[in-house]
Amino acid sequence: MNDSSAYEDPYLIISSDCHAGLPTEQYRPYLDSRFHPQFDEFLGQRDARRAEATKLGVRNEAFAEKWFHDHEEGLRGGWDTGQRLKELDGDGVAAEVVFPDADAVDSQTAAPFGVGLGLSGDQDPELGMAGAQAHNRWLAEFVSETPERHCGVALLPITGEPAKVVAEVYRAKESGLGALMIPAMWVDKAPYHDRRYDPVWAAAAETRMPIVTHSGSSPRHEYGDHLGIFVSEVTWWPSRPLWFLLWSGVFERHPGLKFGVAESGCWWLPNQLWFMDRLYLGAHGGKKLSPFEELKRPPSEYLDRQVFICATNTKRRELAQRYEIGVDNILWGSDFPHPEGTWPSTRTWLKNTFHDIPVGETRRMLGLAAADVFGFDTRKLAPLARRIGPTPAELGQPADQAAVEASWARSRETGRHWLTGEDFPALGVTR
Amino acid sequence: MNDSSAYEDPYLIISSDCHAGLPTEQYRPYLDSRFHPQFDEFLGQRDARRAEATKLGVRNEAFAEKWFHDHEEGLRGGWDTGQRLKELDGDGVAAEVVFPDADAVDSQTAAPFGVGLGLSGDQDPELGMAGAQAHNRWLAEFVSETPERHCGVALLPITGEPAKVVAEVYRAKESGLGALMIPAMWVDKAPYHDRRYDPVWAAAAETRMPIVTHSGSSPRHEYGDHLGIFVSEVTWWPSRPLWFLLWSGVFERHPGLKFGVAESGCWWLPNQLWFMDRLYLGAHGGKKLSPFEELKRPPSEYLDRQVFICATNTKRRELAQRYEIGVDNILWGSDFPHPEGTWPSTRTWLKNTFHDIPVGETRRMLGLAAADVFGFDTRKLAPLARRIGPTPAELGQPADQAAVEASWARSRETGRHWLTGEDFPALGVTR
Repeated sequence: MNDSSAYEDPYLIISSDCHAGLPTEQYRPYLDSRFHPQFDEFLGQRDARRAEATKLGVRNEAFAEKWFHDHEEGLRGGWDTGQRLKELDGDGVAAEVVFPDADAVDSQTAAPFGVGLGLSGDQDPELGMAGAQAHNRWLAEFVSETPERHCGVALLPITGEPAKVVAEVYRAKESGLGALMIPAMWVDKAPYHDRRYDPVWAAAAETRMPIVTHSGSSPRHEYGDHLGIFVSEVTWWPSRPLWFLLWSGVFERHPGLKFGVAESGCWWLPNQLWFMDRLYLGAHGGKKLSPFEELKRPPSEYLDRQVFICATNTKRRELAQRYEIGVDNILWGSDFPHPEGTWPSTRTWLKNTFHDIPVGETRRMLGLAAADVFGFDTRKLAPLARRIGPTPAELGQPADQAAVEASWARSRETGRHWLTGEDFPALGVTR
Repeated sequence: MNDSSAYEDPYLIISSDCHAGLPTEQYRPYLDSRFHPQFDEFLGQRDARRAEATKLGVRNEAFAEKWFHDHEEGLRGGWDTGQRLKELDGDGVAAEVVFPDADAVDSQTAAPFGVGLGLSGDQDPELGMAGAQAHNRWLAEFVSETPERHCGVALLPITGEPAKVVAEVYRAKESGLGALMIPAMWVDKAPYHDRRYDPVWAAAAETRMPIVTHSGSSPRHEYGDHLGIFVSEVTWWPSRPLWFLLWSGVFERHPGLKFGVAESGCWWLPNQLWFMDRLYLGAHGGKKLSPFEELKRPPSEYLDRQVFICATNTKRRELAQRYEIGVDNILWGSDFPHPEGTWPSTRTWLKNTFHDIPVGETRRMLGLAAADVFGFDTRKLAPLARRIGPTPAELGQPADQAAVEASWARSRETGRHWLTGEDFPALGVTR
């Protein structure tokens, strides 16, 4: 178990949130030919989509130009494996979980019919599945060149016909993909507590494919051109399915299912967990609320057993909350090749962020927890990690780890204070 | 300024979240007679509404029976002023902010056409305004008997025709009401960033009527019979308008407007504030995001100037976060006469919750902050408060306040860590 590995050992880093996608027009050979006419239409609307993104302020002309100029070569890693591995090595990243949409600035690599990060429950079922399969077929090829370094995330338009959705789960697994992304929003379709989805949860559990939502879709029609509104709640929509699955007993009925939320931070989780645990624990003998028959244990136990957070570039504030979230539930990610991520300065970024975090916990959050969730083979990755991974010393983490552990002792012992008999959380180091 | 008042002085307690409403059928004389036919229909659907609440698990038959049996006399205080003042005195509450729906268990006091806490943006505009005016007329009478002790909250179906909405703001103010409750959800109507609402914000600012959302409405059709889902997000919907107003510049255009969120806790605010401040402060020279022209200062400055939280029965976890939220932004409330509130055991509840909180801060959160926001006359209330208010000693707060202040020093000095140069929040007392 690497937790007990020596202080000197380089980190085995796995990014739980990276992105890859073909320049959109190149998806054509991967798309069933009967959808080529609709595909041409889709390509024709590209400028309109970009204009809309610019209007909302998600896209900034001046920034876009500089971004593509400064990173032209590296950005080819969005679809070119050779270039990609070079960039990952440079960042010290041994392996990655691969979500769609390499180009978050100009959407030049949008999957057919916009089923990438914008995958939405109200998508036309037929076009949605066609676009998803096109991306999934390409992605399976893409990750097959160095399978030990990539976990490909299949796009799953889950609100379609259950039999077809289940079939795609098995097809994706068979093709070498390792996880499933479902829309954060079901929009006008059945919410995720609906029993119609049980066969899909069962298939995901059986194939050991974690189900993930990723930030991207949101009710933009409500925001006008106010970017701040969008950013203020864009992380709420992908986390929302968590309590729909939890309270409807999906984790109880499908103990093998793993569910995660990607690129939505983890800052919101402690409050939500405290709130849900109190609700559940208070309801037994509670005043006004009925008991929750679908659950056999408190929400936090399901969380530790089946839920994970692809927290991407974890903020210092979030790391201070890790004993409430659960260290093993936090999966770091570089978000390569997106501009809001840490590439190409991941090594510096890691030093600024993790310098006072205990090494054992850092190993979990930077890679080992992701290896457990997504099934990476750490033995196969070990030699590469030893070659490219930064050491604790390079992250500025002191050799005297006992002192570091001690500075977090009170926060660690308090943990989830509502379960440890404390009234308050205890956040931050004690000096 | 009472902050500097002696340790011995009893507290001036103002509940920022109480509820009053007539037994529904008694609203008839306050309702325009041309709506009486629809009112009879509404009364006829009462059993159906109760059945639905029971199905979702919000209503528990056994609990309901016990509740009404144990508190029959006190619950009459929901609409009987004499009884109400007796109950407030017993709890040590000198004054209160009065929201609708006294009966949260069986909805026996629902305002006509369900425009109470369930007030929703998609309400029929004509019926909605008629029902709101019926409640507002009765409420104005109700508070007029002892005006210094009540701030009546007028129901404002804001998604209707702006001219009529503005007229109701002035009519309500004229009638003696002191605040305005708008729907938490606009549903299919214009979101609150829409300029169509500017005349309403202007009228609220001019009349010094704070605008408030209160938990109650939510997309229940999405929840099935899963109570946990409802409770997990019911506090999100009333807080949502905050970032719609903030990012669309409403607080900048209407510096006299005060906006509050009621009975939704305040645990969610520190994260939201940290998130929004970072977004705003990072955007100037930020990578991918456009600047936010509608704002002239960081979100936290608008918050401290114009936003308040009717936090009701504040949890210990929330009090630990008060230096991030802002002590002056937290308004305690008893939620009388709702079962999830502190009545009739408010004195005991206050002792359990505030025993280690500094007296000066407790005075603000238990009353003085609410007096500032809702315009209560503390001089008029002082004699009553001296008679019924609990003392710091009765709340278990030690006479050695210097030691209490010191135990919170680090948390207080860290405050909003993203503005004080600290990486982490510092929550909890130092021992």
